[in-house]
Amino acid sequence: MTTRILNVELGSRSYPIRIGSGLLSDPANFQALRGRRALLLTDTNLAGHHLNRVLETLRMEPSQALVLEPGESHKSWDQAGRVLDWMLQAGLGRDAALVALGGGVIGDLAGFCAAVYQRGIDFVQIPTTLLAQVDSSVGGKTAVNHPRGKNLIGAFHQPIAVIADTRTLATLPPRELRAGMAEVLKYGLLADTVLFGWLERNLDRIMALDPQFISETVERCCAIKARIVGLDERESVSGGPRALLNLGHTFGHAIETYSGYGEWLHGEAVATGMCMAAELSHRMGWIKAAELERATRLIGSIGLPTLPPAGMQPADFHRIMGLDKKVKDGKLRLVLLRSLGEAVLSADFDATALEATLEKFCVAGTGGAGPAQAIAIPAG
Amino acid sequence: MTTRILNVELGSRSYPIRIGSGLLSDPANFQALRGRRALLLTDTNLAGHHLNRVLETLRMEPSQALVLEPGESHKSWDQAGRVLDWMLQAGLGRDAALVALGGGVIGDLAGFCAAVYQRGIDFVQIPTTLLAQVDSSVGGKTAVNHPRGKNLIGAFHQPIAVIADTRTLATLPPRELRAGMAEVLKYGLLADTVLFGWLERNLDRIMALDPQFISETVERCCAIKARIVGLDERESVSGGPRALLNLGHTFGHAIETYSGYGEWLHGEAVATGMCMAAELSHRMGWIKAAELERATRLIGSIGLPTLPPAGMQPADFHRIMGLDKKVKDGKLRLVLLRSLGEAVLSADFDATALEATLEKFCVAGTGGAGPAQAIAIPAG
Repeated sequence: MTTRILNVELGSRSYPIRIGSGLLSDPANFQALRGRRALLLTDTNLAGHHLNRVLETLRMEPSQALVLEPGESHKSWDQAGRVLDWMLQAGLGRDAALVALGGGVIGDLAGFCAAVYQRGIDFVQIPTTLLAQVDSSVGGKTAVNHPRGKNLIGAFHQPIAVIADTRTLATLPPRELRAGMAEVLKYGLLADTVLFGWLERNLDRIMALDPQFISETVERCCAIKARIVGLDERESVSGGPRALLNLGHTFGHAIETYSGYGEWLHGEAVATGMCMAAELSHRMGWIKAAELERATRLIGSIGLPTLPPAGMQPADFHRIMGLDKKVKDGKLRLVLLRSLGEAVLSADFDATALEATLEKFCVAGTGGAGPAQAIAIPAG
Repeated sequence: MTTRILNVELGSRSYPIRIGSGLLSDPANFQALRGRRALLLTDTNLAGHHLNRVLETLRMEPSQALVLEPGESHKSWDQAGRVLDWMLQAGLGRDAALVALGGGVIGDLAGFCAAVYQRGIDFVQIPTTLLAQVDSSVGGKTAVNHPRGKNLIGAFHQPIAVIADTRTLATLPPRELRAGMAEVLKYGLLADTVLFGWLERNLDRIMALDPQFISETVERCCAIKARIVGLDERESVSGGPRALLNLGHTFGHAIETYSGYGEWLHGEAVATGMCMAAELSHRMGWIKAAELERATRLIGSIGLPTLPPAGMQPADFHRIMGLDKKVKDGKLRLVLLRSLGEAVLSADFDATALEATLEKFCVAGTGGAGPAQAIAIPAG
């Protein structure tokens, strides 16, 4: 297996993404940390699978790793405070680095702590979930959650390197792998019809983690993300290209907030959110019925939920989405699809079409039982 | 009175500093906030003196202001969490702004909250102490304290405007005005012998807040700070010019930490720290005895302390300074004076000279009673 290397071009903040199978065993992939003091943040899920190997490769002591409880509910202001206490207790200097070994929760939390520790120290992302490898580890968005919403507190802080070892995906629970596929599909829907078609044709091999296909998947997605991040590093408030990466996320965040963190996986909520965005795009007269059908079918084929949780009402969406970071001048903006492979950020969507979309999904969702229901849909 | 306008040149993050008497009454000074939603952070000290005027000029409701207890002990992680809760409760969007009305504590805390609120929103500094006007409001350093040390958690986040109304200084307690003068002297010592001589000659008029002299003081200091920040926005770890602004601060932070926040004012601790840095610089053979004498005399003339608190030992300095942000590869670096008006960041200072300096000051300090003792030195 070759190591695929992409570069995120951000001037003095540029950094490499290394993608391949077995990268965590080779010190050559960790040049960014050579000769530097480092601490590592991970969770108990990872500690059983990959922590020892990484410590060995990096020649670190177990005392240099902090192992947290897993889960979105631990990505909090208070938890960040505890991590910072630990870093200070260890006497970490401004020239040291923090390593994040884990999924999006660990990466976001570690990145945020690195961003604010002594006004910013270097950090390295070792994403171990599909979602983190194709999305959250790249681009410098770091955050913690707040009871009022996800990722409402955070910072833009770019890692100095991302090391995506696709072998770590073999230890993922199937539900997490499916959730990660939601973000993979997202890239096809918003930016790349060729990728979308390739995913339709090769879904089985990708889901089976065929080394070549899964590495190619991660690389194609990271290439799109790296390009967009390079154009709009800090997601300009006026609606630059980076906002398009939030396709399905406004509806999705509402679902996550409504359900309480941890009930729905992020990717599951985004999957349903993309179905809703596609529906609204179709009602706006932008994507065709056949394209809506293709998108919804592929999401369902993976075994991802396509409906919001039982009991969630249109009013719940309105209430929660009012706090979304994409609100400008009090007006909600949504990422929609002009066509398959072309997303737009729009504040001019038809309010009636939005209502109809919310009504349709909420009525249909009432009969369901959350993400578990959709997982029962047979794959392929 | 004319309004003096300086510009901090930082590319897309450039911003103006407006300096003058009575600026807070004129909406023209708040162009940066025109037509935008804003919230304001201040403390109970300011609420009595300037809050109503600012709210009126900005046409803001009292409910848009959060009034905190004053003091360094409130510049904490937990307090930042409460401010962020308040901002979220108010439903502040990413395009809104936060206004800091107060001294360094309010400016640092508000700046940090603005830096991490939804990954960064705009903020405006209205510094109301001399220290904040000449130093902390300019340059984008934001932070909260940690029991292990000052400003250990924070972010670089530039304001979009700084509005320094010198009329606010009339309501300062004399002790705070003196503390602010420590930072003023600092600029003379580290970068500008002409400024140093001007301060020696005009100290009485400046301390009496003669409008022209106090505005010129703020302008001269901000000009030096703006130039250095423009050269080295994020205080490069390798020791760029910005580190020189910390003259006296490493010793000073140790005094503040040892005493517990709030006992010594920041400027008081920096004043003693500058005496110690000057002493060490002299023992290194860099500044002459006459220059050391001039520096110490001017600090004493203002009524600032020139000795550490009673009971503080050399070992206390060593222990606390080990955690300083300027430590690189485990080696302490100090800002020292090559000559009057020329500071250098040095890791190569003579360890024996440092010991002798600490011994001299700690023995002398043992007989004293903290900052109050030095304030008894007659001014002029």
